[in-house]
Amino acid sequence: MTMEVALPHDLGNDARNDILAREKAYSLGLQRAGEWVSIWRIAGRYANLSIFDVASNDRLHEILWNLPLFRYMTIEVTPLARHPSDLSLTLE
Amino acid sequence: MTMEVALPHDLGNDARNDILAREKAYSLGLQRAGEWVSIWRIAGRYANLSIFDVASNDRLHEILWNLPLFRYMTIEVTPLARHPSDLSLTLE
Amino acid sequence: MTMEVALPHDLGNDARNDILAREKAYSLGLQRAGEWVSIWRIAGRYANLSIFDVASNDRLHEILWNLPLFRYMTIEVTPLARHPSDLSLTLE
Amino acid sequence: MTMEVALPHDLGNDARNDILAREKAYSLGLQRAGEWVSIWRIAGRYANLSIFDVASNDRLHEILWNLPLFRYMTIEVTPLARHPSDLSLTLE
Amino acid sequence: MTMEVALPHDLGNDARNDILAREKAYSLGLQRAGEWVSIWRIAGRYANLSIFDVASNDRLHEILWNLPLFRYMTIEVTPLARHPSDLSLTLE
Amino acid sequence: MTMEVALPHDLGNDARNDILAREKAYSLGLQRAGEWVSIWRIAGRYANLSIFDVASNDRLHEILWNLPLFRYMTIEVTPLARHPSDLSLTLE
Amino acid sequence: MTMEVALPHDLGNDARNDILAREKAYSLGLQRAGEWVSIWRIAGRYANLSIFDVASNDRLHEILWNLPLFRYMTIEVTPLARHPSDLSLTLE
Amino acid sequence: MTMEVALPHDLGNDARNDILAREKAYSLGLQRAGEWVSIWRIAGRYANLSIFDVASNDRLHEILWNLPLFRYMTIEVTPLARHPSDLSLTLE
Amino acid sequence: MTMEVALPHDLGNDARNDILAREKAYSLGLQRAGEWVSIWRIAGRYANLSIFDVASNDRLHEILWNLPLFRYMTIEVTPLARHPSDLSLTLE
Amino acid sequence: MTMEVALPHDLGNDARNDILAREKAYSLGLQRAGEWVSIWRIAGRYANLSIFDVASNDRLHEILWNLPLFRYMTIEVTPLARHPSDLSLTLE
Repeated sequence: MTMEVALPHDLGNDARNDILAREKAYSLGLQRAGEWVSIWRIAGRYANLSIFDVASNDRLHEILWNLPLFRYMTIEVTPLARHPSDLSLTLE
Repeated sequence: MTMEVALPHDLGNDARNDILAREKAYSLGLQRAGEWVSIWRIAGRYANLSIFDVASNDRLHEILWNLPLFRYMTIEVTPLARHPSDLSLTLE
Repeated sequence: MTMEVALPHDLGNDARNDILAREKAYSLGLQRAGEWVSIWRIAGRYANLSIFDVASNDRLHEILWNLPLFRYMTIEVTPLARHPSDLSLTLE
Repeated sequence: MTMEVALPHDLGNDARNDILAREKAYSLGLQRAGEWVSIWRIAGRYANLSIFDVASNDRLHEILWNLPLFRYMTIEVTPLARHPSDLSLTLE
Repeated sequence: MTMEVALPHDLGNDARNDILAREKAYSLGLQRAGEWVSIWRIAGRYANLSIFDVASNDRLHEILWNLPLFRYMTIEVTPLARHPSDLSLTLE
Repeated sequence: MTMEVALPHDLGNDARNDILAREKAYSLGLQRAGEWVSIWRIAGRYANLSIFDVASNDRLHEILWNLPLFRYMTIEVTPLARHPSDLSLTLE
Repeated sequence: MTMEVALPHDLGNDARNDILAREKAYSLGLQRAGEWVSIWRIAGRYANLSIFDVASNDRLHEILWNLPLFRYMTIEVTPLARHPSDLSLTLE
Repeated sequence: MTMEVALPHDLGNDARNDILAREKAYSLGLQRAGEWVSIWRIAGRYANLSIFDVASNDRLHEILWNLPLFRYMTIEVTPLARHPSDLSLTLE
Repeated sequence: MTMEVALPHDLGNDARNDILAREKAYSLGLQRAGEWVSIWRIAGRYANLSIFDVASNDRLHEILWNLPLFRYMTIEVTPLARHPSDLSLTLE
Repeated sequence: MTMEVALPHDLGNDARNDILAREKAYSLGLQRAGEWVSIWRIAGRYANLSIFDVASNDRLHEILWNLPLFRYMTIEVTPLARHPSDLSLTLE
């Protein structure tokens, strides 16, 4: 899934710093809980590529909808499944 | 990075099985070596989403160019960098 | 999810009828099992819009990958979740 | 049909809550009347996928035009017809 | 609705003339019946823009599916409704 | 030709009503004159599909440029010609 | 208007030379007649940008439909009108 | 090359008239100098299609960058070359 | 990599000049350091095409993220590798 | 400029090796002559990004049209000009 952020240019510095701090704390909490598996920056863009491991689409949407930056994001979800060439599955 | 496969309809069954076996072995070898970090199936498509960890763009291209299925694939590379909210970086 | 079919023009009539019969039987079986909830024809196109209710992305991909027409289809999966204005949820 | 919502960032909280309450009531009324057959949230987006069963395109447009959120929506209508593999039609 | 035609280059002249004659007869029949209201050529393309007046999406799809050229066409249906500025409606 | 309208959200009610009334009068005048042959609403969108019969591209642009809503519209012109399967031409 | 050519790879040399010679003669004839005003090569592509001055869309389509290469072309027509900053109009 | 203009809706009438007058004078000057060879209105859009004949890409960019409307324009440059079927080249 | 700039129309002249001066100084510094190898203007657009030679995607993103104009840019990164037909590699 | 190659799957090995050898020799010749300034592989694709320095669009098209692989390529030309932040221009 990719998330692209477009903050309004007229957002004040304080509002900006506040929302970014809340976003980071929210993401770290979900990473600790194991639902937000990985997050990478897409080079050159204010965007990330993330992997989630959640129980259902309902839970996935609940997580995304409550992102502090949700209203400034364009999110594209790509549903992933196990791949037959995945090494970790071969070893099981 | 995503890789989308379009095998020609007139490929015989033997040629098909042979190339798929070679593709799987090639992928497993690179996963064991740690350069092909993850691979997921994109649900509903003959395509995968993969994460690579390589020393350079030259090495990345060398790996992809030698995929047995390369000539039947459409590959899109998204360059990734560390994300400041990545939990594993926070812990270091 | 939408599925668009492009049958090769040089497919013989017998092969065509055979694959279409297998496709229909496969779809009816999954509808009876409750995993393939709805199917509509998209007017003017050789395509359908379908709703699935499955336990996981792995199961969804397994169903789609085994469609007799899979190799002739372009499939786009849209992950759906409960909507807060859904009447059936309001009544519960 | 999909409906994508883009609320202006400068809409006040009261105006926002008011319009969302009216939108929900409007949708529930049409669901009770049987014209708005289903509604799902598209995971990760402020958007829904809905199925309508109406007597004509004129009635469909009348319903959509009067959505409280209409002016903030981008709507894409996909005309649907019966599918020959639809189980409910097979049983009739 | 627009229909774009792509005839295979290896279609013989006889097969080509036969299918085009059947297509024209089919279209004229539906125009006489009043369901195919108008047809224009899109300048510079092997394509047409047509207006239909039919009782339902099911009927529309039945008409299009039985076009002799259907398998060579890419069809895009745009659902139309009455416009409040339509002169003929103003006069009623 | 399609015309898509995007009125600014901060347009006052009076200005809005005034411009819409002028737009409707302008359109009806051209319909009476026979240059604006048909107009339909595209279901679910603030947009129309219209057919014009004008003497030249210069006249077409003059008509469109003077639409009261022109500055809020995105217009796409599709040049149309007679179609050999048009019933009215066959009868002449 | 742009015209993009895609000749099939299996067209023999003789057939290729023959059709290209007929295409050139056809184009020169219309340039001499003043209907095909200008033709430029689009650098790096097997395509041209051309300006036509014709009496009607019907005549334009007749010209394009009879291009020897028509069946191998993708043509996009952009209707042009006089521009108020055109020097030649200013001088009249 | 095409240039599409999008003037901000809140530009005052005086500022608007002033910038349009300067744009027209600038264009006429370059047409007299022979660098701006042709300009047509694209019917139905606030846009033009223009042909330039300049010594280099540097000169082309200098001309475009100094257009009074440059900051409101979306410009797409298509590099053109001589076409072997061009009548004027055939006569030389 | 391409970078497209869209400065807000309401940016004052002083703020505009200041940010452009800082952007130029920043770019020249990286060119002197050898990381920003080349920069060209894309003719007719407020955009550039640039070549970077950096140690990693992390370093590339750090450079781009700190561009004074970053928040007004749309950046597209194309990862490049050595080409087997590159003359400089052939000579080594 | 980018060039994307799509070799037909049924091209024999000898024909393939022959055309690739001629392509490489052609490219090296133009690099030695200084007209083909740089060439990079686009990672993961059978494509390159190249910079040319030529006297005119006519010369550019002549070079590209005579590429041995031209008929299998999709080429996109981006006209480049000097950039005011280019270090080499600043030093002059």
